[in-house]
Amino acid sequence: MNESVIQQVRTRNPLIHNLTNEVVMNFTANGLLAFGGSPIMAKAEEEAGEMASIADGVLINIGTSTLTELPAMKLAGKAANKKGVPVVLDPVGIGATSFRKDVVKQLLQEVQFTAIKGNAGEMAKLVDIPWEVKGVESVGDGDGKEIAAKVSEMYRTTAVVTGETDFICNEGNVIQNTTGHRYLEKITGAGCLLGSILTACLTTEAPIEDQAFAAVYFYGLAAEYAAAQGHVHGSGSFLPAFIDALSRSVDQLNGV
Amino acid sequence: MNESVIQQVRTRNPLIHNLTNEVVMNFTANGLLAFGGSPIMAKAEEEAGEMASIADGVLINIGTSTLTELPAMKLAGKAANKKGVPVVLDPVGIGATSFRKDVVKQLLQEVQFTAIKGNAGEMAKLVDIPWEVKGVESVGDGDGKEIAAKVSEMYRTTAVVTGETDFICNEGNVIQNTTGHRYLEKITGAGCLLGSILTACLTTEAPIEDQAFAAVYFYGLAAEYAAAQGHVHGSGSFLPAFIDALSRSVDQLNGV
Amino acid sequence: MNESVIQQVRTRNPLIHNLTNEVVMNFTANGLLAFGGSPIMAKAEEEAGEMASIADGVLINIGTSTLTELPAMKLAGKAANKKGVPVVLDPVGIGATSFRKDVVKQLLQEVQFTAIKGNAGEMAKLVDIPWEVKGVESVGDGDGKEIAAKVSEMYRTTAVVTGETDFICNEGNVIQNTTGHRYLEKITGAGCLLGSILTACLTTEAPIEDQAFAAVYFYGLAAEYAAAQGHVHGSGSFLPAFIDALSRSVDQLNGV
Repeated sequence: MNESVIQQVRTRNPLIHNLTNEVVMNFTANGLLAFGGSPIMAKAEEEAGEMASIADGVLINIGTSTLTELPAMKLAGKAANKKGVPVVLDPVGIGATSFRKDVVKQLLQEVQFTAIKGNAGEMAKLVDIPWEVKGVESVGDGDGKEIAAKVSEMYRTTAVVTGETDFICNEGNVIQNTTGHRYLEKITGAGCLLGSILTACLTTEAPIEDQAFAAVYFYGLAAEYAAAQGHVHGSGSFLPAFIDALSRSVDQLNGV
Repeated sequence: MNESVIQQVRTRNPLIHNLTNEVVMNFTANGLLAFGGSPIMAKAEEEAGEMASIADGVLINIGTSTLTELPAMKLAGKAANKKGVPVVLDPVGIGATSFRKDVVKQLLQEVQFTAIKGNAGEMAKLVDIPWEVKGVESVGDGDGKEIAAKVSEMYRTTAVVTGETDFICNEGNVIQNTTGHRYLEKITGAGCLLGSILTACLTTEAPIEDQAFAAVYFYGLAAEYAAAQGHVHGSGSFLPAFIDALSRSVDQLNGV
Repeated sequence: MNESVIQQVRTRNPLIHNLTNEVVMNFTANGLLAFGGSPIMAKAEEEAGEMASIADGVLINIGTSTLTELPAMKLAGKAANKKGVPVVLDPVGIGATSFRKDVVKQLLQEVQFTAIKGNAGEMAKLVDIPWEVKGVESVGDGDGKEIAAKVSEMYRTTAVVTGETDFICNEGNVIQNTTGHRYLEKITGAGCLLGSILTACLTTEAPIEDQAFAAVYFYGLAAEYAAAQGHVHGSGSFLPAFIDALSRSVDQLNGV
């Protein structure tokens, strides 16, 4: 893992504009702050583009989108493209309703995403690979590698497929990550916060596969470290321990 | 208490569509996940009905409703009625403003609720029994049993009146519950999360009074267990301990 | 410090109507509950004024405002003015976009604020003193005392400028506070919750400079106390400890 990615985030404190869902806003902001980024959140159509133009990166997460938020998302994404800063898409629950699929389609038409991150079910939906979905969770088994490769190719982007094994695909090369902990499935917004941390990592100077791998590897490592703390007895006590862990160095998380 | 209700939730992980207020979305999702349910949240009018039609149960909580959210609530409630899955109403703060009373009136006209849950002040307002209310909190004393019976009769539903003693009324029979802890009054959304957990319990196979009693009994027991932990020194440290407790078995909570 | 301000809040449990941003609603409600206030939150234009008219104080925080929320904010502020209860403005991130500046301008034209609270960058923007701003954070150095004095004079209000040293100005007199802890910068909404606690303190009977000083002094002291707990290892574990601390007495926080 390219540790300089994490170190650069802590030195630069990149300003990440999070257009994300109401369920996870607080958790996203606290997690990104702990990791070393600076969160801003602005959904008003009147300011989303201007806010994106002062940001170092933009995250668009459609978790609880309404039609009124879509113009702000487009403006922020376009502003990021114009400024040349990374913009990440998290197509939360795209398999659940036709509305979400339409929202994502519109975003993909107007914004060039630096990376797209989702679980296997969501990413499969983007490239019309059959997949079993339950609500906003992905429950099926399948070839995450193939899905990552197809999303990367079809949308000319870096694809990050999360799961027990994460698959990252950039320009045909697929790398895997196996850090993580089952508690992440028991706290809402674990995937959403990863999207914000991925965006922060993409603002550094390093090959994009190093940036994406550093994000998912570090995130899973922090979860393993937090879950191993003696006072963690469930997802409730895991959560503050995980936020603490996100502020640690890789050496600390590895017990070095 | 019918433990199979709790066990069924953990085996089936029912998908609960929560149309709930912005203040408590994150806490509701994390609490429901810990308990064993799967939360989804979608307020866009364009998808609320479709989301409800894939859900195992629907919760409608008017805590911070605006007029723009009302159509989505109606669509989700009607979809639940059509599919034959439980739908629960939490009329948060109905006594505080005429707007809230009107929102609830419209919902009650268009949706047949499986259960209605609220504190004594809120439930009293539904059946025009005088009651002292302070903001969204209920502060008066009164006959919770009578209120539960009237709400159940008037709206042909299972009524759950929460308080130091909880009263559940179904088809004329009233049962009481006394588990609970005063910390629940010091964390926002304690009642709102109970609404979501009640909805999850209503998706099981058991008599409805068993389902409702299991929900309020287990919830209060988990609060007592969490409050008794040695590292809990206030509502702040109570909260993660409570989330942990919601994932325990009844035997564990009883120290068996 | 005038301890009776804190004691009065705990005795009266003032009802505070928080028109605040989605990121911090849950944290604000839990923090205010721990401190001794009673939070209500209602953003619908149809009820914001009515809710304010039953409240003991109103907080208006523009953190994630949209144009649709502005009428509710104006109605709530005017209702507070009419009723004669305190109303506080928190101009979050006013320096970031022209939209926020316009929103604040409209609020200042229609509502007479009892107090305005913000970091140095935000407060400087209100009186056109140059200041370096990064997103919604204030990063420059400067004369907080001068800024507090100018805001107080220009808007005939009590100005509270937060930072490593806080400056409170009322009718030309400036007082300073130095309690606090760096963890407050690592949890989102630390400033927003202070706005709500300040509003609660303004509902008591005491000179306004005593009320404002009690709020910022107590808040910083609680942070110092929480950060000193042995089990606090980062911003994640600090947060529940801080909520616990907000419910303590001044003597307890001072280790008396």
